[in-house]
Amino acid sequence: MFSLASRSLRLSVAGCQASRCSLATVISGSKTSKLVRERLKNDVEKMRNQFSGFRPGLVVLQVRHDSNLYISSKLKAAAEIGIEAKHIRLPSSATQEEVLQSVMAVNQNPAVHGLIVQLPLDSAHKMDTDLITNTVSSDKDVDGLSCINAGKLSRGDLSDCFIPCTPNGCMELIRQTGVSVAGKHAVVIGRSKIVGAPMRDLLLWRHATVTTCHSKTQDLPEQVGRADILVVGAGRAEMVRGEWLKVGAVVIDCGINHLPDETKASGKRVVGDVHYASANQRAGFLTPVPGGVGPMTVAMLMENTVQSAQRFLLRSQSLR
Amino acid sequence: MFSLASRSLRLSVAGCQASRCSLATVISGSKTSKLVRERLKNDVEKMRNQFSGFRPGLVVLQVRHDSNLYISSKLKAAAEIGIEAKHIRLPSSATQEEVLQSVMAVNQNPAVHGLIVQLPLDSAHKMDTDLITNTVSSDKDVDGLSCINAGKLSRGDLSDCFIPCTPNGCMELIRQTGVSVAGKHAVVIGRSKIVGAPMRDLLLWRHATVTTCHSKTQDLPEQVGRADILVVGAGRAEMVRGEWLKVGAVVIDCGINHLPDETKASGKRVVGDVHYASANQRAGFLTPVPGGVGPMTVAMLMENTVQSAQRFLLRSQSLR
Repeated sequence: MFSLASRSLRLSVAGCQASRCSLATVISGSKTSKLVRERLKNDVEKMRNQFSGFRPGLVVLQVRHDSNLYISSKLKAAAEIGIEAKHIRLPSSATQEEVLQSVMAVNQNPAVHGLIVQLPLDSAHKMDTDLITNTVSSDKDVDGLSCINAGKLSRGDLSDCFIPCTPNGCMELIRQTGVSVAGKHAVVIGRSKIVGAPMRDLLLWRHATVTTCHSKTQDLPEQVGRADILVVGAGRAEMVRGEWLKVGAVVIDCGINHLPDETKASGKRVVGDVHYASANQRAGFLTPVPGGVGPMTVAMLMENTVQSAQRFLLRSQSLR
Repeated sequence: MFSLASRSLRLSVAGCQASRCSLATVISGSKTSKLVRERLKNDVEKMRNQFSGFRPGLVVLQVRHDSNLYISSKLKAAAEIGIEAKHIRLPSSATQEEVLQSVMAVNQNPAVHGLIVQLPLDSAHKMDTDLITNTVSSDKDVDGLSCINAGKLSRGDLSDCFIPCTPNGCMELIRQTGVSVAGKHAVVIGRSKIVGAPMRDLLLWRHATVTTCHSKTQDLPEQVGRADILVVGAGRAEMVRGEWLKVGAVVIDCGINHLPDETKASGKRVVGDVHYASANQRAGFLTPVPGGVGPMTVAMLMENTVQSAQRFLLRSQSLR
């Protein structure tokens, strides 16, 4: 396994004390996600050999005609791993009832182990996104967005739930640093359903003391300054400044923001929620944007799908 | 409405600065719960008048022969408010299947709006408590312990979920102080399904910056010292010392512990998780034990039952 464990947070802090004398170690999501996908490819290969040609099945359900980059990257990753992935496209004219019918049909299809409903739903009709998300069978909900999976995660029942892909990827990146989470003070900025709230749960049930900050937090720099581990999912470009950080902290940046940049052919550049250059002077470990959390999200979706297929096989065997 | 708002946290702190010159204001759960129950009695009376004799229905399902103090206090409170409460007792010889059948029968009974399964289940057979809790229909789950309700609460969908009774009671007590929650730093000690985890969610979605501490937290006095609002559900007698507190803090003590005391006829006395005498010197507001959070739990169970009946009536009307 790829590991950055050789350089621990403790050593990093000990070597530099209050003022930083070296740059942060970059936590590469590109490299880590590649290793995760290679491991999954082996797992799927084993399943195929053991269960005569069995393959995990994934469906991406989309309400809209044209495809997008997110979906194609999911389908490509699935194909490489050996997951049978199918893209179901409903037209923008589809009603909520038709979307629900599609979800229920996939729920009942035993060849499918993972179902994700691509959000936002781009329909001409009014859609109750929560209703549709919660209609996905909780044992195929590989996005981990249903109430049942959120409830299990938030209350510490992690063994049989699906963990949302972005925070699950962040945990994998934190693991790569070799810094143990238990007993550390972790700070999460943001409380969204797909990043902040499940991230807080994961850190808490790995026994960190966790503080959740958000738009109403009055002393954000002070709160951030206490974090041994900081995860930022705020959606605001370069909001967290390096000067705020505790020296040696593990900093995970979930932000994907576009800033105008005339030096780029596209006229813009992608930045995270953390101001990278200044954070690099104080953090012990830091994820880049792009190439940090982003690639992990797709890898963890694949992991959830493979895990779901494994659970399906276990259930089938126990029924025999 | 009963209110302690006349004495705000700000005034309390301003009057005393760093060292306390007066004792904390006591937040009485006995008084507040009485007012909640009176309000609910009026609500039920109105329902009965408006919907020809309609009454909210509550079932307490118990696996064990003898009754206990908790159940009888729930039944008594229900009777006083006008809730039709029924105590179903299954013998200790009941199997899990029989318990599940009983739960499902109550789920299907339209005259019942709230169902609580009294824990722990005292059965001769092995019981999957989570399975039984999650078999309670989420729209009758007035204890708020099912995954679905926990998921809604943890992700901020508070409008149509049931909030567990003890943390809901704590929020009512905090409201009584007149101290606003939004933007404050709240610290919760404990992460249990019935107290700590839902308490953190409630404070977060009322826009506090929330830190969760627990047995693995390494700097508990320091964390506690930053709390404008402190809720303790640790289950350890007098663990939190007054010296740890921020001057003027709102301190809510969910602990019920028994200490040996030869001066009492019973040979023991009840104390909370907070050391009352020392906390009283620094806190702005403080709940006593007993007479603080305890009486609120039963009152909030009644509130959830009445709320469930109101939702049931609304659904019935919208179906007409």
